[in-house]
Amino acid sequence: MRVLGVDPGLTRCGIGVVEGSPGRPCRLVAVEVVRTEPDADLADRLLRLDQRLAELLAEHRPDAVAVERVFSQHNVRTVMGTAQAGAVAVLAAARFGAPVRTYTPSEVKAAVTGSGQAGKKQMATMVTRLLRLDTAPRPADAADALALAICHVWRGAAQARLQAAARAASAAGAASRGGHR
Amino acid sequence: MRVLGVDPGLTRCGIGVVEGSPGRPCRLVAVEVVRTEPDADLADRLLRLDQRLAELLAEHRPDAVAVERVFSQHNVRTVMGTAQAGAVAVLAAARFGAPVRTYTPSEVKAAVTGSGQAGKKQMATMVTRLLRLDTAPRPADAADALALAICHVWRGAAQARLQAAARAASAAGAASRGGHR
Repeated sequence: MRVLGVDPGLTRCGIGVVEGSPGRPCRLVAVEVVRTEPDADLADRLLRLDQRLAELLAEHRPDAVAVERVFSQHNVRTVMGTAQAGAVAVLAAARFGAPVRTYTPSEVKAAVTGSGQAGKKQMATMVTRLLRLDTAPRPADAADALALAICHVWRGAAQARLQAAARAASAAGAASRGGHR
Repeated sequence: MRVLGVDPGLTRCGIGVVEGSPGRPCRLVAVEVVRTEPDADLADRLLRLDQRLAELLAEHRPDAVAVERVFSQHNVRTVMGTAQAGAVAVLAAARFGAPVRTYTPSEVKAAVTGSGQAGKKQMATMVTRLLRLDTAPRPADAADALALAICHVWRGAAQARLQAAARAASAAGAASRGGHR
């Protein structure tokens, strides 16, 4: 399963692509940070981000896209940019036709480190280890985007196992009901 | 000058198109409210809004797009949806190639009623009068979108006059400098 993760932001937007499957380590496919100038026109900033996302989606053809869900506890000016960049990312994925999931920062931290309260450094360490890289991806936005993608590969895999188990149980139930006929 | 105004929202997004020129009343070209279900998938909601905006831009070919600038004093949940829908509107205009301007609610109120503190009812009354309609556009999101478009026609016209005056002054200055040679 190939997943494109987005840590949304107007000034810096982290985008990471990883590949992985249930019970196997993930592989880094691509990572970059799209930057736009804070004093540039909003329309130009959103357009630049949209164009780069469309290029990366077309190039890497992910099976799914994971985007950080925006939260209100940040300062208000930051939240606006994050919400706007996040909307562009979700829309770009939808236009491309990939399923989109949003995750809160603590869901991502819990998936990657085992703790929803993990710090930046711990996250970067785990992303580096899980992708078997020599050095931590920089800046933090790049590591966060990769963590989102890893989180989706693993949670998607867990969900797939749950669904398979449910299907097996349902089939066994049907067979057992059939036996009582 | 033809302007498409957007009062952004995920549940209800007002879109209005008006035509006008300096010193003349505006004419209503089109108005509608795009609605998406609050419990629908975010990606589907943004995609639906994007598609309808693209259709309306292609159909009415506005010279400019005016979008309400999101503010922080609303409640946080509402602000997120407004920021996301606003980003989709600004991006749709940029993709279409139309210049985009954002206006605060009080700028729009001041342009249309003369007071930045005008209430919803006063705004609807003035939009009805300025477009010479028989009844007020409903719901409020429709009236607000039209008010944004009217605001831009008038402020755009005022800016054009200022630029023309500056050009004339600069030309006169050049002529006068030429006379002293």
